[in-house]
Amino acid sequence: MRNPVQDYLEQIVEQCGAAGGEVAAYIPELAAADPDRFALCLATVDGQVYEVGQAEHRFSIQSISKPFTYALGLHDQGVETVARKVDVEPSGDAFNEISLAPGSGRPKNPMINAGAITATSLVAGDDEDDRFGRALDWFGAFAGRELEVDEGVYGSELATAHRNRAIAHMLREFEILEDDPEEVLRRYVRQCSIAVDTRDLALMAATLANGGRQPRTGRQLLEAHLVEHVLSVMTTCGMYDAAGDWVSAVGMPAKSGVSGGIIGVLPGQVGVAVFSPRLDAHGNSARGVALFERMSRDMEMHLMHVSRGSRSALRSSYSLQTARSRTRWQGADDEVLDRVAGRARVYELHGDLLFAGAESVARTVVEDAPEVAVFDLTQVNEIAQVSRVTLLALRDRLREAGSEAVAVDPAGVFPDPDAGTERASPIFPDLASAVEWCERELIRAHCGPRPEPDPVEDHPLMRDLEASAAEAVRAAMTRRVVPDGETVLEAGGPFSGVHLIVRGRAEALGTGPDGQSVTLVTMGPGTSFGELALGTDGEQQTTIRAVEELELLVLTAQDLARLADEDPVIGVQVWRAIARDGYRVADRALRRGAVRAR
Amino acid sequence: MRNPVQDYLEQIVEQCGAAGGEVAAYIPELAAADPDRFALCLATVDGQVYEVGQAEHRFSIQSISKPFTYALGLHDQGVETVARKVDVEPSGDAFNEISLAPGSGRPKNPMINAGAITATSLVAGDDEDDRFGRALDWFGAFAGRELEVDEGVYGSELATAHRNRAIAHMLREFEILEDDPEEVLRRYVRQCSIAVDTRDLALMAATLANGGRQPRTGRQLLEAHLVEHVLSVMTTCGMYDAAGDWVSAVGMPAKSGVSGGIIGVLPGQVGVAVFSPRLDAHGNSARGVALFERMSRDMEMHLMHVSRGSRSALRSSYSLQTARSRTRWQGADDEVLDRVAGRARVYELHGDLLFAGAESVARTVVEDAPEVAVFDLTQVNEIAQVSRVTLLALRDRLREAGSEAVAVDPAGVFPDPDAGTERASPIFPDLASAVEWCERELIRAHCGPRPEPDPVEDHPLMRDLEASAAEAVRAAMTRRVVPDGETVLEAGGPFSGVHLIVRGRAEALGTGPDGQSVTLVTMGPGTSFGELALGTDGEQQTTIRAVEELELLVLTAQDLARLADEDPVIGVQVWRAIARDGYRVADRALRRGAVRAR
Repeated sequence: MRNPVQDYLEQIVEQCGAAGGEVAAYIPELAAADPDRFALCLATVDGQVYEVGQAEHRFSIQSISKPFTYALGLHDQGVETVARKVDVEPSGDAFNEISLAPGSGRPKNPMINAGAITATSLVAGDDEDDRFGRALDWFGAFAGRELEVDEGVYGSELATAHRNRAIAHMLREFEILEDDPEEVLRRYVRQCSIAVDTRDLALMAATLANGGRQPRTGRQLLEAHLVEHVLSVMTTCGMYDAAGDWVSAVGMPAKSGVSGGIIGVLPGQVGVAVFSPRLDAHGNSARGVALFERMSRDMEMHLMHVSRGSRSALRSSYSLQTARSRTRWQGADDEVLDRVAGRARVYELHGDLLFAGAESVARTVVEDAPEVAVFDLTQVNEIAQVSRVTLLALRDRLREAGSEAVAVDPAGVFPDPDAGTERASPIFPDLASAVEWCERELIRAHCGPRPEPDPVEDHPLMRDLEASAAEAVRAAMTRRVVPDGETVLEAGGPFSGVHLIVRGRAEALGTGPDGQSVTLVTMGPGTSFGELALGTDGEQQTTIRAVEELELLVLTAQDLARLADEDPVIGVQVWRAIARDGYRVADRALRRGAVRAR
Repeated sequence: MRNPVQDYLEQIVEQCGAAGGEVAAYIPELAAADPDRFALCLATVDGQVYEVGQAEHRFSIQSISKPFTYALGLHDQGVETVARKVDVEPSGDAFNEISLAPGSGRPKNPMINAGAITATSLVAGDDEDDRFGRALDWFGAFAGRELEVDEGVYGSELATAHRNRAIAHMLREFEILEDDPEEVLRRYVRQCSIAVDTRDLALMAATLANGGRQPRTGRQLLEAHLVEHVLSVMTTCGMYDAAGDWVSAVGMPAKSGVSGGIIGVLPGQVGVAVFSPRLDAHGNSARGVALFERMSRDMEMHLMHVSRGSRSALRSSYSLQTARSRTRWQGADDEVLDRVAGRARVYELHGDLLFAGAESVARTVVEDAPEVAVFDLTQVNEIAQVSRVTLLALRDRLREAGSEAVAVDPAGVFPDPDAGTERASPIFPDLASAVEWCERELIRAHCGPRPEPDPVEDHPLMRDLEASAAEAVRAAMTRRVVPDGETVLEAGGPFSGVHLIVRGRAEALGTGPDGQSVTLVTMGPGTSFGELALGTDGEQQTTIRAVEELELLVLTAQDLARLADEDPVIGVQVWRAIARDGYRVADRALRRGAVRAR
């Protein structure tokens, strides 16, 4: 089966066919490029690379080096130091304008030659070789493979670098460059001569799209806040004097090079690279510009594209009344819950919790004023700082109102939840245990004085029996004590009777959709297990394990059969009671399904 | 309970206290402004407005009019015509620079005075009054209330508008303005003199954040693609010669005015406005800039902020093996499904289906190569065009491979799904019915030749009985025919026995979390209902309704009791069979819960 994304890319390449324009001719190596050579690569932030055309044809990186050199400067020296040397303002000028600020001599931005030469001077290292070696390694780390310099291009470029030499010396005059301008110039030109292919460029762009982490090697190369900085400058200054047009028509951070490459970054999604050596009047690849315009339109890559997604952080909210836990509470507790479960509410959040999302969650919770609020963060990818602060403040407001907030956070997307408070916030690994905790809290808060229920007498199964039948069942049952952690029933075994829990707790383990072990039910005193095997041709489907020391009263399958044989009238009663309890379980599970599957 | 968002805003206002700078003094009305007046308003895209300070204090809008005038020009004339008159390149110059392109005289962008005067000339209308009236209505529509001109400001501004008058005449000289420059100048100055408060500005910004739809009135004022255009220009040119710094430090489209206002737009989330009349060296509100920098950092408002969310379009995927429908199939069909249900897979998508999301879905489906693919779009907010195309292509590829794709799309986020094909794509209102359809398809495709099962003999309840007991039950049952649409059992009634479906279909209706009627189970021949009431103290919880003409065999509660009384040995068998079937239902429902609640 063919991948439709590959088909789409091939289709647009065909539709955005040969464009006009001329190959750069100021050095023989560039002039010799085949004008009709072409490649388009797209790399996702998880490292999938799509290729159309000659993706592995090599060419010199030229000005596409600039954002990566700037990134290395920021990485080595920090934002403050770099900002003193080079500004971030669009110049409105062509790429080779000197564009130095009057007085200070500070270049307007690092995407023009003067700014890029300055950024090159900010790369740390012991000497020329060390500094260049670090830059080459840096570029290679973004591409995910070792890169080399095209020495032919380097020689030609250096021999004709009159304008850049003038710029370097002018920068030295203003003390923007502090050392030998010739050394900086050589490194700058060597950087521009690094040989890359279109696939390399797509992965370099994807590393920026991925917040500075190389998608294939997984290495975090550049801190995320510095990535924002680099992308900002690419947005306003990356396409020379066509930057404004580019932002309007394409709307993504980009950088072009005179050898015919353009990279574009769609933050959080993909890096794209095009190679086509014919250049337009601005010095940008003509076919590359056409393809980016097309992709931006089709793929809604425009940064200003308003999507509705950021608003809907609240996937759903519902009261515990309609979504009780899988815990089987004994009768009296169950009745309390039937009355007050509506005072606890679950808020299922999802996606990225950005400001607008946190705001709508806060507003909803303030309106609901629940007695217990469960924030289910299972489907949350990331929590913005402001959302974190908002949720912590919301917890404090809830506590002031005498309520409680708990979170379900299996992936730890909300670290250090107790910041700013001395009282620990309950955090649960799954919704089931959070809901169970809420039910326990509600029972504790609302149960009032009443006799402690008897875990055996008050079990639904026993309550349904007449006195004589109950007496017969009690006489037939055997007592069993199971240590904490031990398995009581093994999945795959036969139906082994009804197990009433007198003391302690047990869990039923099943297999989830990905084969992992899943806790299906947690059970405490007054509840029972083992009967479910009746529903699967007498085969025990779940493993039952003690999670505390367990005291059980067991009516074995044999005892049950004997009981019914000896007195069928009692047998009818017992089996009717078992049937009722079975449908009780079924009813709860079906209701829960109706709420969750919305 | 206080809203923590309100608290947060009050807190940052306190922390970003009085800033330096001077009030604009070129006309008496601005010079007279209280330098310490302050307001911050934040409006969400669903129309909630938070206010701190003097949110209803009025002042003249000044240059914050520019993006809205530009928007009206785009709305009236279209992108092409406007682009011929005014460029979109950052000028790198101060706000009052003439910045006309050499030769053409075209202003660099619509956020500087020359460009805004040009945009004013592009507003359609019969005469000066009509044109200005349209602009005033336009601004008012964004604010959501009728606005007025501050005539004092207008008089002063017009009297001192020497530079702008020079610009207007220069534009006329270049034929960028085609009519009377004085008429355009008057309208331009009047627009700048419209009185607004900070709340108005926040709602105007929120309208841009909301894709051109006013959050409170719901009116779509500006087409979404033109909104992108306006926001692009605000990003690169909105903050005068501090635009690059602004993009790096704040990273959101914005516009400032000399009266002390700044608006910022966070696409899809909020519009923000600050008012504080002290200006910095660039002519931007000093405290406003400080607050925006703070909010951008805290709220991760930066456009380049890489969030992980856009990647995870695939919420989960699982085979039907682990998530069967709530339909009860008769025994033989059930066995077929047990064998082949794994060949159908459900793909639950969520959020905004952007390119990267669609790509990962396509890749996963191509790898799985399922026999039936269910795309559950219930939690999808929006589908980008490229994702739509990708999903349609994926459907075609699946069909080529002999497979089928169906969608669950209750909200119609995927309109016209049959585009480009003659074969209708099955679309379902809920996952349950899609899964049921898949199961039916799988049974049809894989059941092979076998005797038609008997809906009564092969019912699990009957199969579990010995011959004599089965005979007794058959003799005790009564036949009943129920017309299509008629209610068989009413919720709230008593346990009325076991109802075996011989022919036709029935549904069980319950109440969902919001009180709405929800189909809990759909049942066909060979299945039964009524037993669930056993689990709820003998009270029927769901209403059972025929969805086709139904033929039933009913073992009433009375007949069942009589049967057990007359022959308790048979009674034990019957109740054991009922118990087993109850646990069968419970087991299925619990398993489904375990998959869904992930």
